Amino acid sequence: MMYKEPCFIVDQSRWLKRREEAYRRFLEDIEIGYADKDIVDFIKHIFAKEKIFTTSSCSGRITIVDALYPWLREESYIVFKKHEPVSVDEIIVVIQQQPLHRLWLISSGPIVHFVAVNLDTAYRILQIARESGFKHSGIISMSIDGIVVEIISGTWTSFLLRDGDVWFTNNIDKIVAVANEVLIEGKKRLEKLFKLFKDADI
Amino acid sequence: MMYKEPCFIVDQSRWLKRREEAYRRFLEDIEIGYADKDIVDFIKHIFAKEKIFTTSSCSGRITIVDALYPWLREESYIVFKKHEPVSVDEIIVVIQQQPLHRLWLISSGPIVHFVAVNLDTAYRILQIARESGFKHSGIISMSIDGIVVEIISGTWTSFLLRDGDVWFTNNIDKIVAVANEVLIEGKKRLEKLFKLFKDADI
Repeated sequence: MMYKEPCFIVDQSRWLKRREEAYRRFLEDIEIGYADKDIVDFIKHIFAKEKIFTTSSCSGRITIVDALYPWLREESYIVFKKHEPVSVDEIIVVIQQQPLHRLWLISSGPIVHFVAVNLDTAYRILQIARESGFKHSGIISMSIDGIVVEIISGTWTSFLLRDGDVWFTNNIDKIVAVANEVLIEGKKRLEKLFKLFKDADI
Repeated sequence: MMYKEPCFIVDQSRWLKRREEAYRRFLEDIEIGYADKDIVDFIKHIFAKEKIFTTSSCSGRITIVDALYPWLREESYIVFKKHEPVSVDEIIVVIQQQPLHRLWLISSGPIVHFVAVNLDTAYRILQIARESGFKHSGIISMSIDGIVVEIISGTWTSFLLRDGDVWFTNNIDKIVAVANEVLIEGKKRLEKLFKLFKDADI
Protein backbone atom coordinates (compact mmCIF):
# COMPACT_ATOMS: atom_id res chain seq x y z
CA MET A 1 0.00 0.00 0.00
CA MET A 2 1.08 3.47 -0.86
CA TYR A 3 0.14 5.64 2.07
CA LYS A 4 2.12 6.61 5.13
CA GLU A 5 -0.54 6.37 7.82
CA PRO A 6 -4.26 5.72 8.15
CA CYS A 7 -5.78 8.90 6.80
CA PHE A 8 -9.47 8.28 6.44
CA ILE A 9 -11.37 9.25 9.52
CA VAL A 10 -13.72 6.32 9.88
CA ASP A 11 -15.34 6.81 13.27
CA GLN A 12 -14.55 3.54 15.04
CA SER A 13 -17.48 3.67 17.44
CA ARG A 14 -19.98 4.41 14.64
CA TRP A 15 -18.40 1.64 12.57
CA LEU A 16 -18.63 -0.81 15.49
CA LYS A 17 -22.27 0.08 16.09
CA ARG A 18 -23.12 -0.58 12.42
CA ARG A 19 -21.19 -3.83 12.63
CA GLU A 20 -23.26 -4.98 15.61
CA GLU A 21 -26.51 -4.08 13.85
CA ALA A 22 -25.44 -5.99 10.74
CA TYR A 23 -24.53 -9.04 12.84
CA ARG A 24 -27.87 -8.94 14.66
CA ARG A 25 -29.74 -8.81 11.31
CA PHE A 26 -27.67 -11.73 10.02
CA LEU A 27 -28.61 -13.85 13.07
CA GLU A 28 -32.28 -12.92 12.60
CA ASP A 29 -32.15 -13.94 8.94
CA ILE A 30 -30.78 -17.34 9.92
CA GLU A 31 -33.46 -17.78 12.59
CA ILE A 32 -36.37 -16.98 10.29
CA GLY A 33 -34.87 -19.12 7.52
CA TYR A 34 -34.37 -16.12 5.28
CA ALA A 35 -30.59 -16.51 4.95
CA ASP A 36 -29.06 -17.61 1.64
CA LYS A 37 -27.61 -20.97 2.78
CA ASP A 38 -24.76 -21.11 0.25
CA ILE A 39 -23.16 -18.05 1.84
CA VAL A 40 -23.90 -18.46 5.57
CA ASP A 41 -20.52 -20.01 6.44
CA PHE A 42 -18.72 -17.28 4.56
CA ILE A 43 -20.61 -14.56 6.43
CA LYS A 44 -19.78 -16.21 9.76
CA HIS A 45 -16.11 -16.04 8.81
CA ILE A 46 -16.45 -12.39 7.79
CA PHE A 47 -17.85 -11.51 11.21
CA ALA A 48 -14.98 -13.41 12.84
CA LYS A 49 -12.54 -10.86 11.40
CA GLU A 50 -11.93 -7.65 13.30
CA LYS A 51 -11.69 -4.96 10.66
CA ILE A 52 -14.61 -5.73 8.36
CA PHE A 53 -18.24 -6.75 8.29
CA THR A 54 -20.85 -7.31 5.59
CA THR A 55 -24.22 -5.60 5.16
CA SER A 56 -25.58 -7.59 2.24
CA SER A 57 -24.67 -10.62 0.25
CA CYS A 58 -26.00 -13.08 -2.30
CA SER A 59 -24.40 -16.40 -3.34
CA GLY A 60 -25.80 -16.05 -6.86
CA ARG A 61 -29.34 -16.68 -8.03
CA ILE A 62 -31.69 -17.35 -10.89
CA THR A 63 -34.59 -14.94 -11.17
CA ILE A 64 -37.39 -14.24 -13.58
CA VAL A 65 -38.08 -10.54 -13.74
CA ASP A 66 -41.06 -8.79 -15.32
CA ALA A 67 -39.52 -5.52 -16.52
CA LEU A 68 -38.73 -3.58 -19.66
CA TYR A 69 -35.00 -4.11 -19.00
CA PRO A 70 -33.27 -6.57 -16.69
CA TRP A 71 -31.38 -3.95 -14.65
CA LEU A 72 -34.46 -1.94 -13.61
CA ARG A 73 -35.57 -1.82 -9.97
CA GLU A 74 -38.62 0.41 -10.32
CA GLU A 75 -41.52 -0.87 -12.41
CA SER A 76 -39.82 -4.24 -12.15
CA TYR A 77 -41.26 -7.35 -10.53
CA ILE A 78 -39.31 -10.41 -9.43
CA VAL A 79 -41.76 -13.22 -10.22
CA PHE A 80 -39.34 -16.07 -9.45
CA LYS A 81 -36.17 -16.34 -7.35
CA LYS A 82 -33.97 -19.27 -6.35
CA HIS A 83 -30.38 -19.52 -5.09
CA GLU A 84 -29.96 -23.03 -6.53
CA PRO A 85 -30.19 -24.62 -9.97
CA VAL A 86 -33.73 -24.65 -11.33
CA SER A 87 -35.80 -27.19 -13.25
CA VAL A 88 -37.49 -26.64 -16.60
CA ASP A 89 -40.89 -27.28 -15.01
CA GLU A 90 -40.42 -24.53 -12.42
CA ILE A 91 -39.64 -22.04 -15.15
CA ILE A 92 -42.44 -23.08 -17.51
CA VAL A 93 -45.08 -22.57 -14.83
CA VAL A 94 -43.91 -18.99 -14.28
CA ILE A 95 -43.65 -17.94 -17.90
CA GLN A 96 -47.20 -19.07 -18.71
CA GLN A 97 -48.41 -15.92 -16.94
CA GLN A 98 -48.81 -12.90 -19.22
CA PRO A 99 -46.28 -10.26 -18.12
CA LEU A 100 -46.90 -6.53 -17.73
CA HIS A 101 -43.65 -5.81 -19.59
CA ARG A 102 -41.10 -8.45 -20.59
CA LEU A 103 -40.02 -11.66 -18.89
CA TRP A 104 -36.25 -11.99 -18.45
CA LEU A 105 -34.58 -15.08 -17.03
CA ILE A 106 -31.48 -13.79 -15.24
CA SER A 107 -28.68 -15.93 -13.88
CA SER A 108 -26.43 -13.78 -11.74
CA GLY A 109 -23.28 -14.41 -9.78
CA PRO A 110 -22.43 -13.71 -6.14
CA ILE A 111 -22.34 -10.20 -4.71
CA VAL A 112 -20.97 -9.18 -1.31
CA HIS A 113 -20.77 -5.73 0.27
CA PHE A 114 -17.90 -5.46 2.72
CA VAL A 115 -17.55 -2.50 5.09
CA ALA A 116 -13.94 -1.99 6.16
CA VAL A 117 -12.71 0.13 9.03
CA ASN A 118 -9.77 1.47 7.04
CA LEU A 119 -8.52 1.84 3.49
CA ASP A 120 -5.76 -0.73 3.89
CA THR A 121 -8.25 -3.47 4.75
CA ALA A 122 -10.61 -2.35 1.96
CA TYR A 123 -7.79 -2.56 -0.56
CA ARG A 124 -6.70 -6.01 0.59
CA ILE A 125 -10.23 -7.34 0.16
CA LEU A 126 -10.26 -5.86 -3.32
CA GLN A 127 -7.04 -7.67 -4.18
CA ILE A 128 -8.36 -11.01 -2.88
CA ALA A 129 -11.54 -10.48 -4.91
CA ARG A 130 -9.59 -9.91 -8.12
CA GLU A 131 -7.51 -13.02 -7.51
CA SER A 132 -10.75 -14.99 -7.19
CA GLY A 133 -12.12 -13.73 -10.51
CA PHE A 134 -14.40 -10.98 -9.16
CA LYS A 135 -13.11 -8.50 -11.68
CA HIS A 136 -15.74 -5.78 -11.46
CA SER A 137 -15.21 -5.22 -7.76
CA GLY A 138 -14.39 -1.79 -6.39
CA ILE A 139 -14.55 0.67 -3.52
CA ILE A 140 -17.97 2.23 -4.02
CA SER A 141 -18.15 4.59 -1.05
CA MET A 142 -16.05 6.09 1.72
CA SER A 143 -17.49 7.87 4.72
CA ILE A 144 -17.25 8.35 8.46
CA ASP A 145 -19.23 5.08 8.79
CA GLY A 146 -16.77 2.92 6.87
CA ILE A 147 -15.33 2.09 3.47
CA VAL A 148 -17.63 -0.03 1.33
CA VAL A 149 -16.19 -2.55 -1.12
CA GLU A 150 -18.58 -4.14 -3.60
CA ILE A 151 -17.46 -7.59 -4.74
CA ILE A 152 -19.18 -8.71 -7.95
CA SER A 153 -18.42 -11.56 -10.29
CA GLY A 154 -18.94 -11.01 -14.00
CA THR A 155 -20.79 -14.32 -14.30
CA TRP A 156 -24.12 -12.91 -15.44
CA THR A 157 -26.47 -13.67 -18.31
CA SER A 158 -29.96 -12.57 -19.29
CA PHE A 159 -32.39 -14.43 -21.53
CA LEU A 160 -35.39 -12.61 -22.96
CA LEU A 161 -38.22 -15.13 -22.78
CA ARG A 162 -41.40 -13.19 -23.47
CA ASP A 163 -42.61 -9.70 -24.40
CA GLY A 164 -46.35 -9.48 -23.81
CA ASP A 165 -47.75 -12.22 -26.05
CA VAL A 166 -44.58 -12.74 -28.06
CA TRP A 167 -42.36 -15.70 -27.10
CA PHE A 168 -38.68 -15.53 -27.84
CA THR A 169 -37.38 -19.01 -27.47
CA ASN A 170 -38.12 -22.39 -28.92
CA ASN A 171 -35.65 -24.09 -26.63
CA ILE A 172 -36.40 -23.49 -22.96
CA ASP A 173 -34.72 -26.77 -21.86
CA LYS A 174 -31.36 -25.65 -23.16
CA ILE A 175 -31.76 -22.12 -21.78
CA VAL A 176 -32.44 -23.50 -18.32
CA ALA A 177 -29.34 -25.71 -18.67
CA VAL A 178 -27.15 -22.74 -19.59
CA ALA A 179 -28.63 -20.59 -16.79
CA ASN A 180 -27.78 -23.37 -14.31
CA GLU A 181 -24.20 -23.60 -15.67
CA VAL A 182 -23.79 -19.84 -15.17
CA LEU A 183 -25.09 -20.06 -11.61
CA ILE A 184 -22.71 -22.90 -10.77
CA GLU A 185 -19.74 -21.04 -12.25
CA GLY A 186 -20.54 -18.10 -9.93
CA LYS A 187 -20.76 -20.38 -6.89
CA LYS A 188 -17.35 -21.86 -7.75
CA ARG A 189 -15.83 -18.37 -7.73
CA LEU A 190 -17.49 -17.67 -4.39
CA GLU A 191 -15.86 -20.82 -2.96
CA LYS A 192 -12.47 -19.65 -4.22
CA LEU A 193 -13.03 -16.20 -2.69
CA PHE A 194 -14.07 -17.83 0.59
CA LYS A 195 -10.92 -19.96 0.66
CA LEU A 196 -8.57 -17.03 -0.05
CA PHE A 197 -10.46 -14.89 2.44
CA LYS A 198 -10.19 -17.46 5.24
CA ASP A 199 -6.43 -17.79 4.72
CA ALA A 200 -5.88 -14.01 4.53
CA ASP A 201 -4.51 -12.14 7.51
CA ILE A 202 -7.07 -9.33 7.50
CA MET B 1 -14.31 13.84 2.04
CA MET B 2 -13.18 12.41 5.33
CA TYR B 3 -9.44 12.72 5.37
CA LYS B 4 -7.24 15.47 6.70
CA GLU B 5 -4.62 15.69 3.97
CA PRO B 6 -3.66 13.92 0.74
CA CYS B 7 -2.20 10.68 1.95
CA PHE B 8 -1.72 8.46 -1.07
CA ILE B 9 1.70 8.74 -2.58
CA VAL B 10 0.89 8.93 -6.25
CA ASP B 11 4.16 9.87 -7.91
CA GLN B 12 3.21 13.01 -9.84
CA SER B 13 5.94 12.68 -12.46
CA ARG B 14 5.07 9.04 -13.16
CA TRP B 15 1.40 9.97 -13.30
CA LEU B 16 2.11 12.84 -15.71
CA LYS B 17 4.18 10.57 -17.93
CA ARG B 18 1.35 8.04 -18.13
CA ARG B 19 -1.07 10.89 -18.85
CA GLU B 20 1.05 12.04 -21.78
CA GLU B 21 1.27 8.51 -23.18
CA ALA B 22 -2.49 8.08 -22.90
CA TYR B 23 -3.08 11.39 -24.67
CA ARG B 24 -0.69 10.46 -27.48
CA ARG B 25 -2.51 7.14 -27.98
CA PHE B 26 -5.85 8.94 -28.02
CA LEU B 27 -4.64 11.30 -30.78
CA GLU B 28 -3.30 8.33 -32.75
CA ASP B 29 -6.65 6.54 -32.45
CA ILE B 30 -8.42 9.60 -33.87
CA GLU B 31 -5.93 9.85 -36.71
CA ILE B 32 -6.26 6.24 -37.81
CA GLY B 33 -10.05 6.41 -37.43
CA TYR B 34 -10.00 3.86 -34.62
CA ALA B 35 -11.60 6.14 -32.03
CA ASP B 36 -15.15 5.47 -30.85
CA LYS B 37 -16.78 8.66 -32.21
CA ASP B 38 -19.59 8.85 -29.62
CA ILE B 39 -17.04 9.41 -26.86
CA VAL B 40 -14.34 11.54 -28.54
CA ASP B 41 -15.67 14.88 -27.26
CA PHE B 42 -15.92 13.49 -23.75
CA ILE B 43 -12.33 12.27 -23.84
CA LYS B 44 -11.14 15.68 -25.05
CA HIS B 45 -12.83 17.24 -22.03
CA ILE B 46 -11.24 14.68 -19.71
CA PHE B 47 -7.78 15.59 -20.97
CA ALA B 48 -8.61 19.28 -20.48
CA LYS B 49 -8.85 18.66 -16.70
CA GLU B 50 -5.69 18.75 -14.65
CA LYS B 51 -6.04 15.95 -12.15
CA ILE B 52 -7.32 13.06 -14.25
CA PHE B 53 -6.91 11.26 -17.53
CA THR B 54 -8.43 8.21 -19.19
CA THR B 55 -6.71 5.07 -20.46
CA SER B 56 -9.64 3.31 -22.05
CA SER B 57 -13.23 4.01 -22.85
CA CYS B 58 -16.20 2.73 -24.81
CA SER B 59 -19.46 4.57 -25.51
CA GLY B 60 -21.41 1.31 -25.51
CA ARG B 61 -21.56 -1.30 -28.23
CA ILE B 62 -23.36 -4.25 -29.72
CA THR B 63 -21.21 -7.32 -30.23
CA ILE B 64 -21.70 -10.91 -31.28
CA VAL B 65 -19.36 -13.16 -29.37
CA ASP B 66 -18.54 -16.80 -30.07
CA ALA B 67 -17.89 -18.16 -26.58
CA LEU B 68 -19.24 -20.60 -24.04
CA TYR B 69 -20.21 -17.65 -21.80
CA PRO B 70 -20.55 -13.97 -22.63
CA TRP B 71 -18.03 -12.74 -20.03
CA LEU B 72 -15.13 -14.89 -21.25
CA ARG B 73 -12.04 -13.28 -22.82
CA GLU B 74 -10.00 -16.41 -23.54
CA GLU B 75 -11.43 -18.91 -26.00
CA SER B 76 -13.81 -16.15 -26.98
CA TYR B 77 -14.09 -14.52 -30.41
CA ILE B 78 -15.74 -11.20 -31.19
CA VAL B 79 -17.29 -11.89 -34.59
CA PHE B 80 -19.19 -8.59 -34.84
CA LYS B 81 -18.79 -5.19 -33.17
CA LYS B 82 -20.51 -1.83 -33.67
CA HIS B 83 -20.84 1.27 -31.48
CA GLU B 84 -24.17 2.26 -33.08
CA PRO B 85 -27.58 0.63 -33.48
CA VAL B 86 -27.52 -2.39 -35.78
CA SER B 87 -29.84 -3.69 -38.49
CA VAL B 88 -31.44 -7.12 -38.60
CA ASP B 89 -29.65 -7.89 -41.88
CA GLU B 90 -26.20 -7.20 -40.37
CA ILE B 91 -26.92 -9.65 -37.56
CA ILE B 92 -28.44 -12.38 -39.73
CA VAL B 93 -25.34 -12.50 -41.97
CA VAL B 94 -23.12 -13.10 -38.94
CA ILE B 95 -25.20 -15.76 -37.25
CA GLN B 96 -25.40 -17.91 -40.38
CA GLN B 97 -21.83 -18.98 -39.66
CA GLN B 98 -21.52 -22.09 -37.50
CA PRO B 99 -19.89 -21.07 -34.19
CA LEU B 100 -17.15 -22.94 -32.35
CA HIS B 101 -19.04 -22.52 -29.09
CA ARG B 102 -22.16 -20.37 -28.69
CA LEU B 103 -23.20 -17.11 -30.33
CA TRP B 104 -24.23 -14.38 -27.88
CA LEU B 105 -25.58 -11.02 -28.96
CA ILE B 106 -24.43 -8.58 -26.28
CA SER B 107 -25.59 -5.01 -25.92
CA SER B 108 -23.40 -3.26 -23.39
CA GLY B 109 -23.30 0.22 -21.92
CA PRO B 110 -20.47 2.73 -21.70
CA ILE B 111 -17.31 2.07 -19.73
CA VAL B 112 -14.60 4.58 -18.87
CA HIS B 113 -11.40 4.11 -16.87
CA PHE B 114 -10.30 7.32 -15.17
CA VAL B 115 -6.87 7.64 -13.58
CA ALA B 116 -6.85 10.30 -10.85
CA VAL B 117 -3.82 11.91 -9.26
CA ASN B 118 -5.35 11.78 -5.79
CA LEU B 119 -8.10 10.11 -3.80
CA ASP B 120 -10.20 13.26 -3.53
CA THR B 121 -10.49 13.57 -7.31
CA ALA B 122 -11.16 9.82 -7.67
CA TYR B 123 -13.97 10.04 -5.15
CA ARG B 124 -15.57 13.06 -6.83
CA ILE B 125 -15.63 11.23 -10.17
CA LEU B 126 -17.26 8.30 -8.42
CA GLN B 127 -19.97 10.56 -7.02
CA ILE B 128 -20.66 12.14 -10.43
CA ALA B 129 -20.86 8.66 -11.95
CA ARG B 130 -23.45 7.53 -9.40
CA GLU B 131 -25.55 10.64 -10.01
CA SER B 132 -25.54 9.79 -13.73
CA GLY B 133 -26.79 6.24 -13.15
CA PHE B 134 -23.43 4.43 -13.37
CA LYS B 135 -24.15 2.43 -10.26
CA HIS B 136 -21.54 -0.29 -10.51
CA SER B 137 -18.65 2.13 -10.62
CA GLY B 138 -15.81 1.91 -8.14
CA ILE B 139 -12.15 2.51 -7.35
CA ILE B 140 -10.52 -0.62 -8.74
CA SER B 141 -6.86 0.04 -8.06
CA MET B 142 -4.56 2.40 -6.19
CA SER B 143 -0.84 2.60 -6.82
CA ILE B 144 2.12 4.90 -7.21
CA ASP B 145 0.98 5.45 -10.83
CA GLY B 146 -2.48 6.73 -9.95
CA ILE B 147 -5.91 5.81 -8.64
CA VAL B 148 -8.09 4.03 -11.17
CA VAL B 149 -11.85 4.53 -11.16
CA GLU B 150 -13.93 2.23 -13.35
CA ILE B 151 -17.21 3.79 -14.47
CA ILE B 152 -19.72 1.22 -15.71
CA SER B 153 -23.40 1.51 -16.43
CA GLY B 154 -25.62 -1.44 -15.59
CA THR B 155 -27.30 -1.22 -19.00
CA TRP B 156 -26.27 -4.62 -20.28
CA THR B 157 -28.12 -7.57 -21.83
CA SER B 158 -27.11 -10.82 -23.45
CA PHE B 159 -29.15 -12.87 -25.91
CA LEU B 160 -28.18 -16.46 -26.62
CA LEU B 161 -28.72 -16.90 -30.36
CA ARG B 162 -27.06 -20.17 -31.27
CA ASP B 163 -25.25 -23.15 -29.72
CA GLY B 164 -23.52 -25.14 -32.46
CA ASP B 165 -26.40 -26.16 -34.71
CA VAL B 166 -29.16 -25.28 -32.27
CA TRP B 167 -30.94 -21.93 -32.76
CA PHE B 168 -32.50 -20.24 -29.77
CA THR B 169 -34.73 -17.58 -31.12
CA ASN B 170 -37.64 -17.41 -33.49
CA ASN B 171 -37.75 -13.63 -33.30
CA ILE B 172 -34.49 -12.02 -34.33
CA ASP B 173 -36.21 -8.77 -35.44
CA LYS B 174 -37.49 -8.08 -31.97
CA ILE B 175 -34.20 -9.07 -30.31
CA VAL B 176 -32.31 -6.62 -32.49
CA ALA B 177 -34.86 -3.92 -31.56
CA VAL B 178 -34.38 -4.56 -27.82
CA ALA B 179 -30.57 -4.67 -28.19
CA ASN B 180 -30.71 -1.27 -29.92
CA GLU B 181 -32.94 0.16 -27.13
CA VAL B 182 -30.40 -1.03 -24.54
CA LEU B 183 -27.52 0.56 -26.46
CA ILE B 184 -29.37 3.89 -26.73
CA GLU B 185 -30.21 3.88 -23.02
CA GLY B 186 -26.49 3.50 -22.25
CA LYS B 187 -25.58 6.37 -24.57
CA LYS B 188 -28.15 8.60 -22.82
CA ARG B 189 -26.45 7.91 -19.49
CA LEU B 190 -23.09 8.71 -21.02
CA GLU B 191 -24.45 12.09 -22.15
CA LYS B 192 -25.68 12.79 -18.65
CA LEU B 193 -22.29 11.83 -17.21
CA PHE B 194 -20.56 14.06 -19.76
CA LYS B 195 -22.76 17.02 -18.85
CA LEU B 196 -22.21 16.62 -15.08
CA PHE B 197 -18.50 16.08 -15.67
CA LYS B 198 -18.11 19.24 -17.78
CA ASP B 199 -19.81 21.34 -15.11
CA ALA B 200 -17.83 19.80 -12.24
CA ASP B 201 -14.91 21.66 -10.74
CA ILE B 202 -12.43 18.78 -10.82
